[in-house]
Amino acid sequence: MAEKNPFFQSKEVKEFTKKIEQYHLGPLWEAIPDLMHKEPRPEAVPYLWKGETIRKLLLEATQIFTPERGGERRAIYLQNPGLKQRQPWGWASTTNTLYAAVQLILPGETAPSHRHTQNAMRFITDGKGAYSIVQGERLFMEEGDFLITPGGLWHGHSHPGEGPMFWMDCLDIPFIYATGGTFFEPYPDGIEPPSLPDDYSARKYRGGMVRPIGDRKPQVAPLGLYKWKQTEAALEGLSDFEPDPYDGIAVEYINPSNGQTANPNIGAWMQKLPVGYHSKAHRHTYSAIYHVFKGEGYTVINGIRFNWTKGDYFVIPNWAWHEHVNTSKEDALLFCANDLPIMEKLRLQREEAYPNNNGYQSVVGEFEAEVVRS
Amino acid sequence: MAEKNPFFQSKEVKEFTKKIEQYHLGPLWEAIPDLMHKEPRPEAVPYLWKGETIRKLLLEATQIFTPERGGERRAIYLQNPGLKQRQPWGWASTTNTLYAAVQLILPGETAPSHRHTQNAMRFITDGKGAYSIVQGERLFMEEGDFLITPGGLWHGHSHPGEGPMFWMDCLDIPFIYATGGTFFEPYPDGIEPPSLPDDYSARKYRGGMVRPIGDRKPQVAPLGLYKWKQTEAALEGLSDFEPDPYDGIAVEYINPSNGQTANPNIGAWMQKLPVGYHSKAHRHTYSAIYHVFKGEGYTVINGIRFNWTKGDYFVIPNWAWHEHVNTSKEDALLFCANDLPIMEKLRLQREEAYPNNNGYQSVVGEFEAEVVRS
Amino acid sequence: MAEKNPFFQSKEVKEFTKKIEQYHLGPLWEAIPDLMHKEPRPEAVPYLWKGETIRKLLLEATQIFTPERGGERRAIYLQNPGLKQRQPWGWASTTNTLYAAVQLILPGETAPSHRHTQNAMRFITDGKGAYSIVQGERLFMEEGDFLITPGGLWHGHSHPGEGPMFWMDCLDIPFIYATGGTFFEPYPDGIEPPSLPDDYSARKYRGGMVRPIGDRKPQVAPLGLYKWKQTEAALEGLSDFEPDPYDGIAVEYINPSNGQTANPNIGAWMQKLPVGYHSKAHRHTYSAIYHVFKGEGYTVINGIRFNWTKGDYFVIPNWAWHEHVNTSKEDALLFCANDLPIMEKLRLQREEAYPNNNGYQSVVGEFEAEVVRS
Amino acid sequence: MAEKNPFFQSKEVKEFTKKIEQYHLGPLWEAIPDLMHKEPRPEAVPYLWKGETIRKLLLEATQIFTPERGGERRAIYLQNPGLKQRQPWGWASTTNTLYAAVQLILPGETAPSHRHTQNAMRFITDGKGAYSIVQGERLFMEEGDFLITPGGLWHGHSHPGEGPMFWMDCLDIPFIYATGGTFFEPYPDGIEPPSLPDDYSARKYRGGMVRPIGDRKPQVAPLGLYKWKQTEAALEGLSDFEPDPYDGIAVEYINPSNGQTANPNIGAWMQKLPVGYHSKAHRHTYSAIYHVFKGEGYTVINGIRFNWTKGDYFVIPNWAWHEHVNTSKEDALLFCANDLPIMEKLRLQREEAYPNNNGYQSVVGEFEAEVVRS
Repeated sequence: MAEKNPFFQSKEVKEFTKKIEQYHLGPLWEAIPDLMHKEPRPEAVPYLWKGETIRKLLLEATQIFTPERGGERRAIYLQNPGLKQRQPWGWASTTNTLYAAVQLILPGETAPSHRHTQNAMRFITDGKGAYSIVQGERLFMEEGDFLITPGGLWHGHSHPGEGPMFWMDCLDIPFIYATGGTFFEPYPDGIEPPSLPDDYSARKYRGGMVRPIGDRKPQVAPLGLYKWKQTEAALEGLSDFEPDPYDGIAVEYINPSNGQTANPNIGAWMQKLPVGYHSKAHRHTYSAIYHVFKGEGYTVINGIRFNWTKGDYFVIPNWAWHEHVNTSKEDALLFCANDLPIMEKLRLQREEAYPNNNGYQSVVGEFEAEVVRS
Repeated sequence: MAEKNPFFQSKEVKEFTKKIEQYHLGPLWEAIPDLMHKEPRPEAVPYLWKGETIRKLLLEATQIFTPERGGERRAIYLQNPGLKQRQPWGWASTTNTLYAAVQLILPGETAPSHRHTQNAMRFITDGKGAYSIVQGERLFMEEGDFLITPGGLWHGHSHPGEGPMFWMDCLDIPFIYATGGTFFEPYPDGIEPPSLPDDYSARKYRGGMVRPIGDRKPQVAPLGLYKWKQTEAALEGLSDFEPDPYDGIAVEYINPSNGQTANPNIGAWMQKLPVGYHSKAHRHTYSAIYHVFKGEGYTVINGIRFNWTKGDYFVIPNWAWHEHVNTSKEDALLFCANDLPIMEKLRLQREEAYPNNNGYQSVVGEFEAEVVRS
Repeated sequence: MAEKNPFFQSKEVKEFTKKIEQYHLGPLWEAIPDLMHKEPRPEAVPYLWKGETIRKLLLEATQIFTPERGGERRAIYLQNPGLKQRQPWGWASTTNTLYAAVQLILPGETAPSHRHTQNAMRFITDGKGAYSIVQGERLFMEEGDFLITPGGLWHGHSHPGEGPMFWMDCLDIPFIYATGGTFFEPYPDGIEPPSLPDDYSARKYRGGMVRPIGDRKPQVAPLGLYKWKQTEAALEGLSDFEPDPYDGIAVEYINPSNGQTANPNIGAWMQKLPVGYHSKAHRHTYSAIYHVFKGEGYTVINGIRFNWTKGDYFVIPNWAWHEHVNTSKEDALLFCANDLPIMEKLRLQREEAYPNNNGYQSVVGEFEAEVVRS
Repeated sequence: MAEKNPFFQSKEVKEFTKKIEQYHLGPLWEAIPDLMHKEPRPEAVPYLWKGETIRKLLLEATQIFTPERGGERRAIYLQNPGLKQRQPWGWASTTNTLYAAVQLILPGETAPSHRHTQNAMRFITDGKGAYSIVQGERLFMEEGDFLITPGGLWHGHSHPGEGPMFWMDCLDIPFIYATGGTFFEPYPDGIEPPSLPDDYSARKYRGGMVRPIGDRKPQVAPLGLYKWKQTEAALEGLSDFEPDPYDGIAVEYINPSNGQTANPNIGAWMQKLPVGYHSKAHRHTYSAIYHVFKGEGYTVINGIRFNWTKGDYFVIPNWAWHEHVNTSKEDALLFCANDLPIMEKLRLQREEAYPNNNGYQSVVGEFEAEVVRS
C-alpha cells in the first residue's frame, strides 16, 4: 500500500473522485497511501538550533516585548522546518506532538498565572532567583532544575532576584491540539499568591525513595521541582556502572505517587555521556528534543552529523536513526524531553537497533547550523 | 489570551518576527492565541451525509473499482468540510481524531489482510454473509453486528455469500497520524487463512457476563464480534427504566478482559431513542460520529437542526451543544462511534449540561443535506 | 529447613527456649520448620458432604430454628475435618480461607439485612421465588443463579414465593478473620426496603458484553445477579470447542466494570464435563469448594476417589492433585467457588500438571461419604 | 449479632449441634457471633519488649546457637501474648498478620540464601559491615538502613566486618500461612555468590525522584536498600512543616517503579516526633510494630501507657486507640512496620479520630515491661 496504483491516476477515477467530493466524500483508495505508511514518516525533520542565536534574539526581544506592552511570556519557540505547513496559519511545532521554546525573564518581571489542558515542563539553563508558582507553591529555580506543570494546574512566574534567567519550555501543544481538547483559563488576577511554604514539594521529597505518608494517594504532581543537586547525585551513583549502549548514563524524572513519568504525556531525563562515549545507533517511535546542558560532541541523525555544544537544541524525529558522541574532555550532559509516555499509552512504542556496520551509521553529510547575523 | 494584542500587529514586531523566522524560530506571543483557546474550537464542523447518496455512489464505484484493478478496500470516506485544509494534500477526516467510511463488498470479492497501528471498528448496516478474518478467526457478519480490530491485529474480508454488504468503518487514523506513530504491514499473501473455529470469540462470549476461564489475562481483543441479537437483548433489558436524559437507552461495547471500551481509542455504543423521546442538550470534549440504524428524527447541533433518517451519518464535533429527538412512530436506533477513550486517557474529558431554556437549545436554522444528483 | 535439626531437641536448647518464653520471646529456629514449608501444607483436607444429608438436617432444623426464636440465617456450614482445631473455640471453615454453608429459607420467612467486610456469594441449588435485596435492589432467584454481595453492601433475604429454597453460601470469613479486619453492622430496621426496580442490574446487563453507558466507572458490584439462562448459553456457545484438559468447559462470573472476578476475593465458575470426560490431574495454590449441580462422577484428590452425585459438596485443598471424571450419560455440571483472586492478588498462584503416568493419578483408595442416620 | 441468643444455649439446640457435627457440619448461628464482630477484635494485644532484654538474650544465644550446630538464622521473635494459642503448636506471631524478630550476626558468620513466598524486611538497629545478598546483589548495611526482600527473591546474609550486628526482621508469615500459600526453597549451595556490583540498586537510586531509564517497567523490588542518610535528609526536608497530628513527621519507603509501598504486603516508615510532640489519638484497621530508633517517650494504647526508650519494640494491634508522646530533649525516631498494604488491597482500611476529650485518651494504667533477670 506504500505505492500508488497507476490506475488511480486514470481519467475515469479522477472524474469519479471529483464527483463524490461535491458531497464531501472521498475515495479511500486515494487517501490510504498518504496515511498508512509502512513505518513512521513524520513531517518533522532533524534540526539543530544554536543556543547563542536564540540567546541573542531573546535579549534583543527584551527591547520590544516589555511587560507594559503585554504578551504573557517572552519566549521564542523552535519551528521544525518540516512542520511549517502543517497548520493553516503557518505555525510549526518542534516535533509532531511537542512544542519547545526558550523563555527569558528579567529581574522584576512577572508572567501572570494561567492553567490549560496542555502539560508543561521547564528545564532551567541559565541563571537563578526566579520562581514559578504552581498551585500556590513558589518553586525557586536555578540551573539544572526541572519543573513540571501537568494539565490543569495554575502556574505563573516571577523574578525577584538578580540577572536574566533562561529556561527551556516543552509542552504537548500540538498533540492536545490534534485531539480537539484544548481548554485555557487565565488566573483571575495576575499571578497567584502563595498559599504553601516555598519549595514545599521539593523539600518534602528530598530524601530519595521515601515519601511523606500524607502523600499516599496517586496524584498528578505531588512533586513539582526536581533539584539539580539530586539529579547530579543520581548520575554520580550510576557512574561506575556500564553506560547504556544508546543513551549513556541516564536518569528519568518520575512521579513518586505512581512511579510513572513526572508529566503524564512528556518524558524527561538527563543523559551523561562519559568522556569518549560513542553510542550505538537505534531508532524508536517516540520523538525527542535535546538541550545540551554541558560539553560538546555530535549526534548522527539519519546519516547526517549534527555538531553540538553547550546551549544548543536539536530534534530527533520519530523513527530516525541516531547515535550520540561526546568529543569533549569532560562528561557531556544532554537533557532530553520526549513523547515516550504518549507512545506507551497508545501502544505505539517500538524500538530497533541499527542492524548494519556493527551498529554505527555511515556519515553522509554534516548539518550546518545557522548562526545569527548581527 | 483569547484576543490578539494590537501591539503585536505593529511594524516593529512584524519585522522581528520575520527576522527570527530565518532561523526557524517563532514568537510565542504570535502563536498562542491560535493554539490556546479558552475552550475547544475544533476545525471539524457539524455535518450530515445522506445514506442514500453514499449507497448510490458506492454502487457506481463497483463499475470502476473492480478487484482486478487493485485497491484494497472499496470505501468512500466522510470528509468533514471543516477539515479539508488540515493536511497539505487536502485529505479530510470526519472529526479531529476519527476517520469514518462506508465500505461495500460484493459476493465473491476479497479484501486482503493487513495490520496497522490504527485501531479499527466496523458496524454492519446492510446485508449478510461476508466475513472478516481477524488473527485467523473468521467472523461472519450480519446487520447490526459490531466488530473490532484494535491496532496490531491482522484482518481481511471476504464475501462468500449473496448480495452486496455495506458497513461503516471507523478508525483513529488522524489521531495516530498526529502522533507520528503509523506502522502498516500487508499480509504476505492475500487474505490470512483460518486457524481458529469460525465465530470463535463470539460463541465463547455469548453468555453475557461470564467468561471462559482460559481468557483470564487482560487481552487487547478477546472478543472480536458483538452480535446484534445480544445488543438488542441488552436494550430490551433496559427498556423499562428511565432513559438517560442525553442519550436515551444506551449500551456500550466492552472488552471482557478489562471492562474497558472494546477498542482502546474508539468508544462505540448503540442508543435507543424511545417513541417521543426528546433529549436535553449537553456538550462534551469528545467528538462523535453517528449512523442512523433505524427510525427517523433530528439532532440539534449548536442551534442547527439536522434531520436524519435510516442510513444517514452525522457528526458532532468536540464541545458542540447537541440534543436528539425521535419523530418516528417506533423506537429510533443510533449507532455512535466516538473518541471518548482518548479524552479519558489524556484527562481531557469534560461535560456540561446546556444551562438555558430548561436545557433545550433554540433552533436557529436547519441543515439541508446534499442529495446525489444523478 | 523442612526437617528439624536434632540439636534443637537438646536439653540446652529446650532450657533456653523456656527461659526466653518468659519474656514473650520465641526462638526462630524452633518455629521456622512449622511455618516455612517447601510447599503448601494446608490443614484443610479433601472431603465430601452428601447433599442429601445436608438437606435432611436443614429440614429438621426448621423445627428448631424458627424465625421467632431468632437466628438470622438458617444455615449449616461445612466443617473441614482438618481445620477443627484451628480456632480456639473449635470453629472450622471449609478451606483455609473460605467458609461455605447451605442455607434454607421457607416461604414467608425473612433474613434481615446486614453488611460486613467479608465478601459473600450465593449459588441457588433448589427452588425459586425468594429474593435477596442488595443495596435496595431485589434480585429474584431461581436454580442455577449466581449472586454476589462484596464486602460493604447491605443484603437481606425474603421468600414471598412457594416451596423451600436452598442455596450455597460462600464467604471469605477465615481470610478476613486472619487479617483482623472484620466489621459487621446490622441494618437498623429488619430488611432493607426496595429503592431500585426489581432485578435492575440483571436486566441492565442481560445483553452480554455490552454495558449501560451510565456504568462506565469501575464499581465493586455493578451486576449482582447472574442468571442461569445466560450461564447456560455461554456453556452452550463453547460446547463445540475442545474442553480444557483440567476443567472441561468452564465459564467464570466477571465484574463488567473491570473485567475481574465478580467478587473481589472469591472466584466462581461453572464447569461442564461432557459425557465421557476424564480430565488430566493438576494442582494449584488456590483451594476450591465444589457443588455438583448436575450429573454424577468422581474426582480423584491426592490419590483418593471421591464419588459424587447431584447435590453433593466437596473440597480441594490448596496444592492437592486432582482430576475430574464424568460417569453420567449426560453432561455433568460442577459449580466451583475458590480463592484464586486472593492468590493472584498476593502473587501466590502457581500451577503444576501431574508429571507421571501420562497425567493421571493412581487411585489408592476411595472416600466413603457419611450419610445421615435417621 | 454481637450477642449470643440465649435460645442457642438450650438443650434442644445443643443436641442438634452435636448431631450435625458427626457429619462435619456446623450450625451457622453458633459460629457467627465469634466471627462477625461489630469491629475488629484481634487476638493480638498491645505489648512492649525491652531492647536491652532481647539484646542480652541474643548475646547469650551465641553460646548455644553456633553456625556449626545449624540453624539458619540466629533470631528471637516477638510473641504476642494474645496470639499464643492461635496455632496448634503454640507458635505466636507479633500481630495477626505480621511476625517480627531481632536477628544477631557475628563477624565471620553466614546465613545461607533461601527464598520463600513471604515478604520480608530488615531494619538495621546496631552495627555495620554485614551484607545481605539479594538476587546476586550485595547490600552493605549500617544503622538506620532499611532493606526489603519481597516474596520470591533469593536472599542470604554474611558478616565480613567487625563487631556484632543486630537488626529487626519483619515478615508476613502469619498472613501467608493463613492463605495456605507458603512455598520455601533453600539455595542449592549455601550463600548465593555476587553477580551484580555491590550496592547496585542503592547507588542507582540515590538521586531521589529520578530513576535509571533502564528501570522503566514495574518491578517487584528495583531498589533493595534504602540508606539511612537519605531517610534522614527526607525527615530534615520536612522539619519546617507542621507535623501530622497522629504520626509526627513521617516518610514511607516506596517502590520507585510503581509508587507503591516498597514491600507488597508490609508498609514501613520512619516517624520523627519533634521535642515536646504529643500526638492526638486515633485508630485504624491496620496493625503496627514499632522499634524505637532514638529518644524516649511513651505511647498510650487503649488507655494504657507504654513507656519506651531507644531499642524497645512495641505493638499496636488492629483498631486500638493510640497516641505518641516524645518526652526526650531531642527528636525521637520511631521505625514502624505495618500491614497497611494488606488492608488497602483488601478494601479493609478504615481510620477514626478519637472522639472525646479533645482527641486525647484518659490514661488508666501503665504497662510494666519485663526486664531480663540475670
